Amino acid sequence: MRLKLGCHLEYSTTGPVPFVFNVEVQSFPGQAVEQETLSISPDLRLEHWTMPESGNRYFRVNLPGGPLSIRYTATVNVTPALDNPTEVAEIALSNLPLSVLPHLYPSRYCQSDKLDRFARSTFGHFHTGYSRVNAVCNWINEYVAYEGGVSDAMTSAFDTVTQRAGVCRDFAHLGIAICRALGIPARYISAYALRLYPPDFHAVFEAFLAGPHGPAWYVFDPTRLADPGGLVRIGVGRDAAEVAFSTIFGPACSAPPEVWIEALEPAPDVTVKAVRPNRA
Amino acid sequence: MRLKLGCHLEYSTTGPVPFVFNVEVQSFPGQAVEQETLSISPDLRLEHWTMPESGNRYFRVNLPGGPLSIRYTATVNVTPALDNPTEVAEIALSNLPLSVLPHLYPSRYCQSDKLDRFARSTFGHFHTGYSRVNAVCNWINEYVAYEGGVSDAMTSAFDTVTQRAGVCRDFAHLGIAICRALGIPARYISAYALRLYPPDFHAVFEAFLAGPHGPAWYVFDPTRLADPGGLVRIGVGRDAAEVAFSTIFGPACSAPPEVWIEALEPAPDVTVKAVRPNRA
Amino acid sequence: MRLKLGCHLEYSTTGPVPFVFNVEVQSFPGQAVEQETLSISPDLRLEHWTMPESGNRYFRVNLPGGPLSIRYTATVNVTPALDNPTEVAEIALSNLPLSVLPHLYPSRYCQSDKLDRFARSTFGHFHTGYSRVNAVCNWINEYVAYEGGVSDAMTSAFDTVTQRAGVCRDFAHLGIAICRALGIPARYISAYALRLYPPDFHAVFEAFLAGPHGPAWYVFDPTRLADPGGLVRIGVGRDAAEVAFSTIFGPACSAPPEVWIEALEPAPDVTVKAVRPNRA
Amino acid sequence: MRLKLGCHLEYSTTGPVPFVFNVEVQSFPGQAVEQETLSISPDLRLEHWTMPESGNRYFRVNLPGGPLSIRYTATVNVTPALDNPTEVAEIALSNLPLSVLPHLYPSRYCQSDKLDRFARSTFGHFHTGYSRVNAVCNWINEYVAYEGGVSDAMTSAFDTVTQRAGVCRDFAHLGIAICRALGIPARYISAYALRLYPPDFHAVFEAFLAGPHGPAWYVFDPTRLADPGGLVRIGVGRDAAEVAFSTIFGPACSAPPEVWIEALEPAPDVTVKAVRPNRA
Repeated sequence: MRLKLGCHLEYSTTGPVPFVFNVEVQSFPGQAVEQETLSISPDLRLEHWTMPESGNRYFRVNLPGGPLSIRYTATVNVTPALDNPTEVAEIALSNLPLSVLPHLYPSRYCQSDKLDRFARSTFGHFHTGYSRVNAVCNWINEYVAYEGGVSDAMTSAFDTVTQRAGVCRDFAHLGIAICRALGIPARYISAYALRLYPPDFHAVFEAFLAGPHGPAWYVFDPTRLADPGGLVRIGVGRDAAEVAFSTIFGPACSAPPEVWIEALEPAPDVTVKAVRPNRA
Repeated sequence: MRLKLGCHLEYSTTGPVPFVFNVEVQSFPGQAVEQETLSISPDLRLEHWTMPESGNRYFRVNLPGGPLSIRYTATVNVTPALDNPTEVAEIALSNLPLSVLPHLYPSRYCQSDKLDRFARSTFGHFHTGYSRVNAVCNWINEYVAYEGGVSDAMTSAFDTVTQRAGVCRDFAHLGIAICRALGIPARYISAYALRLYPPDFHAVFEAFLAGPHGPAWYVFDPTRLADPGGLVRIGVGRDAAEVAFSTIFGPACSAPPEVWIEALEPAPDVTVKAVRPNRA
Repeated sequence: MRLKLGCHLEYSTTGPVPFVFNVEVQSFPGQAVEQETLSISPDLRLEHWTMPESGNRYFRVNLPGGPLSIRYTATVNVTPALDNPTEVAEIALSNLPLSVLPHLYPSRYCQSDKLDRFARSTFGHFHTGYSRVNAVCNWINEYVAYEGGVSDAMTSAFDTVTQRAGVCRDFAHLGIAICRALGIPARYISAYALRLYPPDFHAVFEAFLAGPHGPAWYVFDPTRLADPGGLVRIGVGRDAAEVAFSTIFGPACSAPPEVWIEALEPAPDVTVKAVRPNRA
Repeated sequence: MRLKLGCHLEYSTTGPVPFVFNVEVQSFPGQAVEQETLSISPDLRLEHWTMPESGNRYFRVNLPGGPLSIRYTATVNVTPALDNPTEVAEIALSNLPLSVLPHLYPSRYCQSDKLDRFARSTFGHFHTGYSRVNAVCNWINEYVAYEGGVSDAMTSAFDTVTQRAGVCRDFAHLGIAICRALGIPARYISAYALRLYPPDFHAVFEAFLAGPHGPAWYVFDPTRLADPGGLVRIGVGRDAAEVAFSTIFGPACSAPPEVWIEALEPAPDVTVKAVRPNRA
C-alpha cells in the first residue's frame, strides 16, 4: 500500500540549543521510500546519522536561538508480509538467535525483571505463540485505560501495570515488558499510523516469533487504535528512551506536532493476519 | 473458645540497645485474658505502655549488652461474634463514622492512592459488601504466591501487586490497600493464629463494614492459612510499621522466634461466617 | 501574638459527593481560639469530629450536588514558648516516651526506612540536638528547589531526596523522614502561616526534643518562607495523608483556596529561638 | 602490560536449561588477546556470537541437565593510552558524535532522567572535564558504602543514590546515571580487574570525553578497588542488564565463580593519568 505522510514541528528558543530529531521513516524491503523531503527554517546545517543496528535515522540541528520549523514529507510503499497467526510460534530460548538477546533484557521503561511473576502468573498458562502475545495486547486493552495526562515521560511499565492508565507509549512499554518476562524478545516501534485519530506519532511494539518462513519480528498494537497494515516505521529501540521524535538539549518552547498520513490506494484488510514488516 | 499461647524470643548484643516489644495480647469484650505471664532474663526493668486509640500493649527493655530472653504466655477466651456474610454491607462514605477515616488514608506499606485504578478496575464491578472484601482475598490468594525470601521489610502493597509473591504481612498489606482504594476502611492486625503451620506470628486485616448489629470491624485472612475463629489479637495499626513484634534500636543477633498456640476446647466452625472480634 | 485568619473554599459537583474538611484551627494552651465562625452555603448539615490523639478538627458535608462554599474565620492568640536552641537536646531511644514511638515509624510519604543510610551518612556526624534538625532544614533548603508543578499528591520524601524540587509539603515530608531515620520522632503540621507569600495553607514539621523544661515538640520550617512564631496549627499527623485540608470523595470542580492571615499586634522576633507550640 | 586471567564456573540443573555466557575478553588495538582457551564439560555444542556494535562475545550452551563446568583462560596484552587529565574536556551536546547518543539515554539501572536535578544540583557547578567525572566518582566513593547484601539484581542507580550502599555494579550504575544527567555519554564495563580483592568479576564505567587526540572513551572506577591500568574488558553495555557474565534461562544451582588475574610484568603507574582503553 502506498501512503503519503509527514509532520510539521515548530520550536523557539532564546539561546543556542541543539535538537536531535528522529522523524524520517526507515527504509527496508517491506517499506520502500519513493520520495522524501525535509525542509528546515532557518536554513541551518543538518548532521545526519543512521544507526547501523536499528536503521533509525537521526538528524541534529544546532539552533542559535529564535524560531525553528521542521517540515518532513514522504511517499512510502509499505508491503508487509501477512502470515496466518496459527502458524506463528514462540521460539525456545535454546534456539533464539543470539543477536536478538538484547531485546530480552529489561530496559528503562520496560522492567521485565520486576514484572516477571506478574507476567508468568497472568499469561504463563496461555497457549504459546502469536495468540499469546495477542492475549497480552487484549489484556492491556481491557485493563489499561487509554487516557492522556495520567502518565508522563518518566512513567514505566512497572507503573502502568498498577496505575492502569496511559497512552500508546505506555501500552507499548507494558506489552514489551510482559513479552520479555515471558521469554519473547520484544522492541519498541515509533511510527506514522493510518487511521489514528487524532493524528499523532504512534507507538506499537514488535515481538520476535517463528513464522512459516522462519523467525521474524511481528507487529502488535495494544491500543487497537491504528490500522496494523498502515504503519510506517520511524524508529526501533529497546524502549521510548531510544526513539523520541525530538530530543531537545536545553530550554525551548514548542507547538504540538502536526502529523498526517493518508493512503494513496485502498488498504488491504489485515485484521486476521499476523503482520510482519518484511525487513530482511 | 479458650486458647493457650505464648512466645519465646532470644537476642544478644555487644553493647547497650533498647528493645520495644509488642507481643502481649489485647484485652476487649471478645478477647478476655484469663491469665498471663511475662518473664525476662536478665531481670531488667520494663516500661509498659498501652496505646489508647488501638489498645496495643508495648514494653521497652534497655539491654546493657549480652543475652536477652523474653518469654510470654497467656490463656485467653476468644468469643468473636459470628454474623451472616450476606447481612454485612459496605458503608457509604457519607455515612462512615469520622473516627475511622484514618484507616482510609494511604500508609507506608499500603499505598491505596497508587493502587486506586487497579482496585477499581479489578473489583469496582463486584457486588459490594462482605463478599467483595472476600473476593479481594480470593484474588490475592490466587494471584500472589505465598513464598518466603521474595519480600523483605521494605516490601509494600505497591510492590506485591506486581511481584506477586510474599508472606502473610504482604498479603495483609495488599488487602488493606485495595480496600482503602475501594473506600472501605481497613487496618492491619498482628495475632497468634491457631492452626498456622509452621507456628509464627501471623498478620491478617480488618475491614470496617455494616453488620446486622451496626458498623464493626470484620477480620479477613487472604492467606487462608489460619483458623479465622482462632485468632488472638496482639496489635492493630495502619500497617506493619506500627505493630512489629519487636523493634530493635541497634545491632543485635536474634534467634527465630518460637511461637505457640493451642485450643483448650474444640474450635467452633466459623468457615461460612463473617467474624467480628466483638471489640466495643 | 493575636492573629486573625481564615479561608474561603469553593466547589461544585453534578451529583452527591461527601467532603471532609480540616481547616479549623486547634485549641491548646499555646494557641487560644478567641473567636471563630464557620459558614457554609447552601445550608447543609455538618458533622464534626475532633481526633482525640491529635486534636485535629474535621467536619463532613454531604453535598447533594451543585455549588458549595465554605468560609472560616478565627481570631487566635498564639503564645509559643521560646527556648534557647543550645539548651534543646535529642532524646536517647532508651528514654523516649513510648507514646511518641508512632512518630518514629515510616509513613506513606516519609519512608524513613528507605532513607536510613542517606540520613545517617549525611547527618550522622553532626552534633546532636536542635542544631542537627536545623542542619537538616538547611540542607533541604539548599538542595531542594522550591518549585510548583514538579511534585504531586503522590510524591514522597523518597522521591524528593533525589528529584530535588517540591513545595512546602515535600520539604516537610523530607525533614520528617530524615529525622525519623536519625531516631528523632517527627510529625507533619498543616497551618495558617504569617508572611507566607502568596498566602496559602502551609506545611511544616515538628521534632520531639528535650528542652530546658522537659521533652516537647519543636517546630521547624525547611522552606524558611513563613514566620515560625506566626504559625497557627490546623492539623497534626504522621504525614500529609492525615491532614489534607479537604478530602473529596467523588468528582468535583474547585477554585483555588483563598487563605488569609494577619497579625493584630507586632510579632515577637523568634528567629534565634527554638519555638515550642506549648501544647501540654 | 601482559596479564593472565581466567574463570571457572560451575552449575547443575535437573532438566534442560539454556545458558548464555559473556566471560571472554574483547579484542581491540589496546587489548590484544595473545592466547585463549575455553573448555566445557560435558562436551556440549557451543554457539558463539559477537555483538557488532559492542564487540561483546557471547556463547550459549544448552545443558540437557546435570553438571556444567566452564573454564576460560586468556593471556592478554593491555596497552591503554594514558592522557593528562587536565587535557581531557567534556564535549558540547552540539558537537557529540550522533553515534554515542544511545549512551546518553536512561536505561534500566541508570535512570538519568530521574536523577537529573540531583546530578545538576550536586555537580552542576564543578569545573567541567575529566575532573568533574572524577569528582562524581569521589562523591560515590565517599557517600556510598561498599557492602554486599544490601543491593540485589533489581537495584538501580535511583535506589543507590538514596540507600547509599552497594557493590561495584551499583557504583558503576550510579556513576553512569549521573554522567548522563550531566550530558556526558557513559556506559557500563564488565572486566577482569588486577588487584581486586577478593578476586571477582568487576564493574566500572566509561565516559565519552574529548582528549588531546580527539574524542574517546575514558575509564572510571568509583570503587577505587582495582588498578585502572589493569582492567581487561569483557562486556560493554548500557548497563548491567546487557553484560551479565551468565544468563540462565531456568532453575539451576551454582557455585560462586572463581576468577583470577595476574600481571606477567610490572604494571605501569597510571594513578595520575586519564586511562583510555585505546579502542579505535
